[in-house]
Amino acid sequence: MIGELNEESGIMGIYNGVNIVRNVSTGLYALQHRGQESTGIAAANGEKVRVRKSMGLVAGFVQDGKLDEIAENCIAAIGHVRSSTVNNRTLANAQPMLVTCKWGFLAVVLNGSITNAGELRAEMGESGHIFQSNSPAEVILHEISRTKADNLTDAIRTAIKKLKGSFCVLFLTPDTMYAARDGFGFRPLCMGKKNDSWFFASESCAFDLLSVDYVKDIQPGEFLVINKDGIHSEQLLKKDRKAFCIFEFVYFARPDSRIYEQSADKVRRKMGKKLAQEHPVDADIVIPCPDSSTTAALGYAQESGIRFEIGLLRNHYLGKTFIDPSQNVREQRVKLKFNTINGVLKDRRVCLVDDSIVRGTTLKILCKMIRNAGAKEVHIRVASPPVEHPCNYGMDFPSPAELIATALAPAEVAKMLGVDSLGYLSVKGMRECTGQPDDFCCACFDDIYPE
Amino acid sequence: MIGELNEESGIMGIYNGVNIVRNVSTGLYALQHRGQESTGIAAANGEKVRVRKSMGLVAGFVQDGKLDEIAENCIAAIGHVRSSTVNNRTLANAQPMLVTCKWGFLAVVLNGSITNAGELRAEMGESGHIFQSNSPAEVILHEISRTKADNLTDAIRTAIKKLKGSFCVLFLTPDTMYAARDGFGFRPLCMGKKNDSWFFASESCAFDLLSVDYVKDIQPGEFLVINKDGIHSEQLLKKDRKAFCIFEFVYFARPDSRIYEQSADKVRRKMGKKLAQEHPVDADIVIPCPDSSTTAALGYAQESGIRFEIGLLRNHYLGKTFIDPSQNVREQRVKLKFNTINGVLKDRRVCLVDDSIVRGTTLKILCKMIRNAGAKEVHIRVASPPVEHPCNYGMDFPSPAELIATALAPAEVAKMLGVDSLGYLSVKGMRECTGQPDDFCCACFDDIYPE
Amino acid sequence: MIGELNEESGIMGIYNGVNIVRNVSTGLYALQHRGQESTGIAAANGEKVRVRKSMGLVAGFVQDGKLDEIAENCIAAIGHVRSSTVNNRTLANAQPMLVTCKWGFLAVVLNGSITNAGELRAEMGESGHIFQSNSPAEVILHEISRTKADNLTDAIRTAIKKLKGSFCVLFLTPDTMYAARDGFGFRPLCMGKKNDSWFFASESCAFDLLSVDYVKDIQPGEFLVINKDGIHSEQLLKKDRKAFCIFEFVYFARPDSRIYEQSADKVRRKMGKKLAQEHPVDADIVIPCPDSSTTAALGYAQESGIRFEIGLLRNHYLGKTFIDPSQNVREQRVKLKFNTINGVLKDRRVCLVDDSIVRGTTLKILCKMIRNAGAKEVHIRVASPPVEHPCNYGMDFPSPAELIATALAPAEVAKMLGVDSLGYLSVKGMRECTGQPDDFCCACFDDIYPE
Amino acid sequence: MIGELNEESGIMGIYNGVNIVRNVSTGLYALQHRGQESTGIAAANGEKVRVRKSMGLVAGFVQDGKLDEIAENCIAAIGHVRSSTVNNRTLANAQPMLVTCKWGFLAVVLNGSITNAGELRAEMGESGHIFQSNSPAEVILHEISRTKADNLTDAIRTAIKKLKGSFCVLFLTPDTMYAARDGFGFRPLCMGKKNDSWFFASESCAFDLLSVDYVKDIQPGEFLVINKDGIHSEQLLKKDRKAFCIFEFVYFARPDSRIYEQSADKVRRKMGKKLAQEHPVDADIVIPCPDSSTTAALGYAQESGIRFEIGLLRNHYLGKTFIDPSQNVREQRVKLKFNTINGVLKDRRVCLVDDSIVRGTTLKILCKMIRNAGAKEVHIRVASPPVEHPCNYGMDFPSPAELIATALAPAEVAKMLGVDSLGYLSVKGMRECTGQPDDFCCACFDDIYPE
Repeated sequence: MIGELNEESGIMGIYNGVNIVRNVSTGLYALQHRGQESTGIAAANGEKVRVRKSMGLVAGFVQDGKLDEIAENCIAAIGHVRSSTVNNRTLANAQPMLVTCKWGFLAVVLNGSITNAGELRAEMGESGHIFQSNSPAEVILHEISRTKADNLTDAIRTAIKKLKGSFCVLFLTPDTMYAARDGFGFRPLCMGKKNDSWFFASESCAFDLLSVDYVKDIQPGEFLVINKDGIHSEQLLKKDRKAFCIFEFVYFARPDSRIYEQSADKVRRKMGKKLAQEHPVDADIVIPCPDSSTTAALGYAQESGIRFEIGLLRNHYLGKTFIDPSQNVREQRVKLKFNTINGVLKDRRVCLVDDSIVRGTTLKILCKMIRNAGAKEVHIRVASPPVEHPCNYGMDFPSPAELIATALAPAEVAKMLGVDSLGYLSVKGMRECTGQPDDFCCACFDDIYPE
Repeated sequence: MIGELNEESGIMGIYNGVNIVRNVSTGLYALQHRGQESTGIAAANGEKVRVRKSMGLVAGFVQDGKLDEIAENCIAAIGHVRSSTVNNRTLANAQPMLVTCKWGFLAVVLNGSITNAGELRAEMGESGHIFQSNSPAEVILHEISRTKADNLTDAIRTAIKKLKGSFCVLFLTPDTMYAARDGFGFRPLCMGKKNDSWFFASESCAFDLLSVDYVKDIQPGEFLVINKDGIHSEQLLKKDRKAFCIFEFVYFARPDSRIYEQSADKVRRKMGKKLAQEHPVDADIVIPCPDSSTTAALGYAQESGIRFEIGLLRNHYLGKTFIDPSQNVREQRVKLKFNTINGVLKDRRVCLVDDSIVRGTTLKILCKMIRNAGAKEVHIRVASPPVEHPCNYGMDFPSPAELIATALAPAEVAKMLGVDSLGYLSVKGMRECTGQPDDFCCACFDDIYPE
Repeated sequence: MIGELNEESGIMGIYNGVNIVRNVSTGLYALQHRGQESTGIAAANGEKVRVRKSMGLVAGFVQDGKLDEIAENCIAAIGHVRSSTVNNRTLANAQPMLVTCKWGFLAVVLNGSITNAGELRAEMGESGHIFQSNSPAEVILHEISRTKADNLTDAIRTAIKKLKGSFCVLFLTPDTMYAARDGFGFRPLCMGKKNDSWFFASESCAFDLLSVDYVKDIQPGEFLVINKDGIHSEQLLKKDRKAFCIFEFVYFARPDSRIYEQSADKVRRKMGKKLAQEHPVDADIVIPCPDSSTTAALGYAQESGIRFEIGLLRNHYLGKTFIDPSQNVREQRVKLKFNTINGVLKDRRVCLVDDSIVRGTTLKILCKMIRNAGAKEVHIRVASPPVEHPCNYGMDFPSPAELIATALAPAEVAKMLGVDSLGYLSVKGMRECTGQPDDFCCACFDDIYPE
Repeated sequence: MIGELNEESGIMGIYNGVNIVRNVSTGLYALQHRGQESTGIAAANGEKVRVRKSMGLVAGFVQDGKLDEIAENCIAAIGHVRSSTVNNRTLANAQPMLVTCKWGFLAVVLNGSITNAGELRAEMGESGHIFQSNSPAEVILHEISRTKADNLTDAIRTAIKKLKGSFCVLFLTPDTMYAARDGFGFRPLCMGKKNDSWFFASESCAFDLLSVDYVKDIQPGEFLVINKDGIHSEQLLKKDRKAFCIFEFVYFARPDSRIYEQSADKVRRKMGKKLAQEHPVDADIVIPCPDSSTTAALGYAQESGIRFEIGLLRNHYLGKTFIDPSQNVREQRVKLKFNTINGVLKDRRVCLVDDSIVRGTTLKILCKMIRNAGAKEVHIRVASPPVEHPCNYGMDFPSPAELIATALAPAEVAKMLGVDSLGYLSVKGMRECTGQPDDFCCACFDDIYPE
């Protein structure tokens, strides 16, 4: 799946230590693949929380020199990289979201999707609240703020219990950091430690470049309070089952990350192997859709014994706006981003491994390019099942009508893409690759929504 | 008074017509003297209200191309130029402030100061509201939003009645504009008309460059509703007296503006004449502190018969950040902004007319420069009384300890400034110049706060 | 004359001392009225000359942080603010122009117009030179570079002798600064001193804000060499007469400047007085076209005994690009920039003093605005003669066909502008005001070109 | 070799057709890997040549809207992406370089290095030329300009004959394009055609995304003139041998490009295979240094039968300035850019394939990271010989003292890098992989400089 899905957001937090704000930005940089829409950091100095945000990448954010002011005397900070749908691409929706309420400064970063946000928002609106964004993060802050409680910690506890859906959140006050994960554990959130500093990040790859040791995953339903008195943990929410998002293994997570207490690379590779078992092919080479499908393709090649090759080259210099609207846009964009290596493809029977198919529009163009490069046959193998159902927990899938698999059986998809065969990994096979087949939410594939 | 006081804000609104967003920006440009900190416009298109804001001047805001999107199908728009204290210079505090509440989209621009904003805010915080800015405009939106009422119009009515202090406000929903002025009428707000369009602006100078006819001042306590059913007016608030801010005539308003139903130029000129009567001087020339004191100086010259001259030249190219912090900053900044015309000043007895004195720090440097240019004598005449009391209605005066007049009698001020004499206009004389001596708030001069 | 003529350029140089680069930028800021197109500074550190330039104002240039690098170890620097015709508005034409030639690094700033630049350029082109700009400054550098001489100083001497037209130039090498002025002395260039530093500037106002003492004008034909051996002066060029540009007194120079060894304010004021003698008027008030005509209007008012007033207000916040091309552009632009103070003009017989008229297009709109404000009569008095001839020495006049005075007699001009009368200062009268009637070039008025 | 060598420049030209300027920018985008320092395009419209340049990537250049003006009526255009050494990173050195000379407008883009540029420059300086950059492109323009000839075409012919070193050049006048390649053919330059348009590019990958057909390589010494009379070709320069730069195959060229009439991917892959034959290893996996070594690693894996893996992940979001100078910079930078996939490396005997080693500093850090990830053994295989000699033809190698291979034998390099073994491809082996062993310059490896 290439360029067909907005990524998830990424969150990062550090309590205590030196260079906190800079290290949060460094961690966000490692999480950049989870969101490129906006970047922000909120920092606490014991008295205040201050925030800086901007549209665009971490690199631009850091260059802007916005951070020096808030870095001074910082004792804790939280950061966010955001992905969003077209309509919500405004700075008002960027995170961290910082407000003052009866308990003073309160900032939040959220990765996930609150399924009852609309309902809560309507209820809050009725009782007189105003909204300055479309963000569920703002709804969470309202909920905490309107909770009757003796202190902020209790208010957060109570508010979190009212939230439905998927969420990993970090809160920041002038002197305390809170971390929480929904009861199903849809999205990943891990904890690290280095000297006397505590680190939180959506994926463990953010720890590696800070030389931070991975400690554990925040557990589904776990709630943490970190302040000068130390770190306090409790099991706040309790569900009958786990529901880790399988798409993190399929596509989102960086292969070098450890999420859900497993290596993303290992699970994804197993999916490639399993795919080779389920849908063998008679081909000369296996090539990945760069870059996200490389791991699955390596697994497929290893299991099948077919040679792994690089047949498509991706240009990484593409600026977001290098667009020419007067042309056949989509095809031109795909060509700007990818080129075929003709010597690899010519006269070959090619097995193209993709991690997943959503709309299939980009894939169709790539298949045509591979044909034009002289491939004798093109076979597509998809390292996940057909995406047929909406995600309620944070993935911005197109409407079912736009999902290629909703309308077409695999053979028809193959025909539509102009390829010789197409095989999807089975749901069962995919689940097995995780080693914990019952702990994952595969609703977008199998229509079974955790409750 | 030069560079010693943050200006008031300016607001502008247009209902109906063509090129609405562009015309609001043009009007804001005429109101730029009232605030240079941030610029913003909110536009309604029947279905939505959308906002664009940026730090800095109208010219930069317009250049940025931010307006095309919101200009489409616009049926009404409101705009704001803002002045602010150092601590509040963030985009979060810029106006218009746009929210959604139970009645849908609601935007507001405010010129004034809500004296019970802190109290309301504390009360709201207790009941669960969150705040994303320090702006009283946000408090107003919360107040409307939490009001129990059958419709938005009634909610606005009820909310406005709870506000204390000075305010001119324009509200915008997808299809309706509201205008209101506090019961004392502290700040000016005038209404204009051209064809089928209605115009609102802090000062009438905004109408001139749009060739709009001035219709009337919004009356103290008046409340207006403008939508496709026409324009509805009512007397919402009722006070026993009027309390127009005298400082608008002393300093804020452009001389070409009509405010409080009088020409700013005429009133200010009378102040200069009255000053000449109260504090005659034996001098060769009368010169103004450029540019705000020119009108008063012309009046002084005319009444006294002493020749009007330009002895100080102001450089209008000064960018906000042309600062060198390593130098004797204040003096360097004054020299960058002003220079003496030595031939005018040399061997002359100079009467320097200033519209007002707040801290006196810049004036002291100017007096020294005039001396260095060879003036034989320097006499200061101030076209307003000594500023000795805080303003609760929107002027950002320094603390009483920093007000030169709080600590020092006129003769001592003269000595401190290094000049030969100094005379202030009397409160009584100032009031007389307005033609309605009882209708003005002069609290910063006479400690009489309207209640 | 408002907005009808591109200004001259301004140049600034400092040899020796501290904060040299910053002080050059401060001086350029005072010279900003001479050019707003581009800004640049070249700095020498004993080994190299480096340059930084950008389009736009000094304030933007300084903010950009471009200067820190070249400020280090700087021993001398030259700077330039530039005005230009539309076609030449490119960074390639910005100054200082820096090259390396057989003598090493050589930078130059030029104020003036080389009348044989085209001829020299053609000749150089024939002999194999290449040009990267349209700037005469580049021609000067080529000329020096191709000169056969024992050393750079001699080469500059020889090259300068070949230049015709008007020029004030400063050259900079890694260790030496040169200054030169053409034999007629068309453009002003003055020298100042503070401690062990030497200062050069187009106008003395640049010295005031640096607290530098004015020493003298560089003489027509004078050539200066400044390096660690001290300052050397010689009379390099010799002409039979002087030919100071009268337009510097009429319009260009800031009134607080000393140029041609006289106060600009004094000479300009005399022109106003002389105008009142030559063309008296029966009027109630005298108002200037802001801001450049204020001094002349003060002189006219003083001599005539008619009251000086401010009847037109200028908005100084106008950004260059605050333009709406879809409107009646010129009128809209004039209205954005100027507004009438109606109380001053209503029912009055108005004498509007302008420093000069070139095209008269803006003036026509202003006159209409004054009429609309209720003036009973409008009389124009121009503090210079009719502009009828091109300038070969640096002023970018429109073609004769566009000069209003070429086609129309004064009475016809009055009719065209819709005013009741119009009077120009005579050439003789203007010359007399300078105190040195024979030392000025008035070619644009009297067709007498110095040779 | 990662981040140790500035890339070569890339050039692109189009004569005739539609959307010429946009297509040049699209082509440059495909050549971006050859230079990221500055981008520029010069366009001819029959009457003029105009240029636009900026520092930074093509994407930023295009976004800036600089191109609309020069795109109008364009009949031909040339473009350039530039790499440069730190000292030359100024806009003045950016290309295309555009001048006017006796023959009018003349622009040039250059890929290569003129070895006698210094000599020519000194000679030109002596005869009076001035230089505004350090670029050899400027020297070429001077040389053409000073040539005595009947017309520009002859002047270019004569000038080119005087140039030594490596060069591919495109010239542009208002109506004609010229292309030339040095007699040895050091750098690649290919020609394409689509309808009636002619295309030139450093690598054929620029043709693919424009759907342009590759026609042929410009031959060593070939000189082309393209104008409305058609395309004229001649053999202008004649050398006894060819001397294609082998480093284009080793590292520079994109694998999907066709250069020197061969597929870069194929030659590079053969080098990997040959390396496996020359230096077999007992390892569990083969991993590439991403991304440039992937092709060679695939070849090594294929030949050796050892499994190909991805063990290092590269983050492509790194902005140029994401630097923290207060840290252990180099190690931090490497970690920001690369991370290990631990599951792949743990307990494995790893064969790391690199395309080349220059300094070895980044590689050393990567090897340490691989060790820390748990690799049992680390073996380095380099798909080119030791770099021991300077390049005179355009590659910006560090001084010999900084080249790791100059000082150390392979076993010592292995020790210094902390790895278990290290093997370089032999010069002979490398030459064989090209299929034309005698046609390549391998001077940096074998000290044999073409003459």
